[in-house]
Amino acid sequence: MSKYPVGLEETVDFLKGLPGIGRRSAERIALSLLNWPQEKLDTLAELLHELKERVTFCPECHNLAEDGGVCDICASAGRDRGVICVVEDPGQIINIEKTGLYHGVYHVLGGKLAPLQGKGPDALHLDTLRQRLAAGNVHELIIALSSDVEGRATALYLADQFQSETIKITRLASGLPAGSDISFADSETIAAAFSGRVKL
Amino acid sequence: MSKYPVGLEETVDFLKGLPGIGRRSAERIALSLLNWPQEKLDTLAELLHELKERVTFCPECHNLAEDGGVCDICASAGRDRGVICVVEDPGQIINIEKTGLYHGVYHVLGGKLAPLQGKGPDALHLDTLRQRLAAGNVHELIIALSSDVEGRATALYLADQFQSETIKITRLASGLPAGSDISFADSETIAAAFSGRVKL
Repeated sequence: MSKYPVGLEETVDFLKGLPGIGRRSAERIALSLLNWPQEKLDTLAELLHELKERVTFCPECHNLAEDGGVCDICASAGRDRGVICVVEDPGQIINIEKTGLYHGVYHVLGGKLAPLQGKGPDALHLDTLRQRLAAGNVHELIIALSSDVEGRATALYLADQFQSETIKITRLASGLPAGSDISFADSETIAAAFSGRVKL
Repeated sequence: MSKYPVGLEETVDFLKGLPGIGRRSAERIALSLLNWPQEKLDTLAELLHELKERVTFCPECHNLAEDGGVCDICASAGRDRGVICVVEDPGQIINIEKTGLYHGVYHVLGGKLAPLQGKGPDALHLDTLRQRLAAGNVHELIIALSSDVEGRATALYLADQFQSETIKITRLASGLPAGSDISFADSETIAAAFSGRVKL
């Protein structure tokens, strides 16, 4: 036996396409699946089969939603529709919501501009964002993209496209993470913290 | 949205039960599954559903096999049935086979003795091993279990149970891994390498 049985190899091939899962982890996972009771495997298979039917994207902001409707946030009456926070992925909305500080709505871009990977403005959800801004009640667009090169380029692109007399465009502050030690901060972060320093 | 849609949460709950997958990785994986085309998800679901039907265990040695038959190794005419190598999991057989040096057959124990986790001799595939040894043509049992406490206890238990005038019981050598530097070896490994030193 120089390789695994076909059914296991095929499962490993699928699993190793998942983020953070290499060949060795995929093998470990597939071997452990063999020890699951059949009904548990069937439930997981059923969940995967129905996943995209049950979990859909909000037609308004592209956040995760259920059964084709708008998402919880767009459906909520208590959110300020005058402020839109632009994020990359739906997963980041959960993190921002945990702070309980933001009461506006969101717009999920579905990525960042990355010309080298062939990802131009067409690959992002910009049309729906343009429509939402054209509707006229939005006064602020908060850009909450990661502060790497692609994130900053995307932020500049958005500012260039949507900045107007009625729409203010802001980005989240850069600086030292809360509770962090300057000894472990990289110089770019320290530079950002210096230039963005605030009066006590 | 303080939590994910139900379909996604349920998938995350399942995924985080897999080895090496925590809550965060499970979320990342579930979100990336949403970007898979439906037919790819269906194929994976189908593979999981059929996994235990297609991949079975060899009735002889408990190695992985296909569709209920004996495994490749037990089926092969070229293997020496006089030597049985005892391993913990089927995954380890692949690693040993890669060396191309071993030509005997295997026996998968399905774990190690771990009384603290309630894993006694009954939880291991000892009955079939006893039958194979009783058949009488085996002259050596090579114990290839990990050299942690449970592995060594299990090796001693096997020696106690099966050592006889006709059956020699051996274990794999302990020592420094090939190509390793003594600077990074722990003292137990160095001690094992000293006591097992060989003449050049």
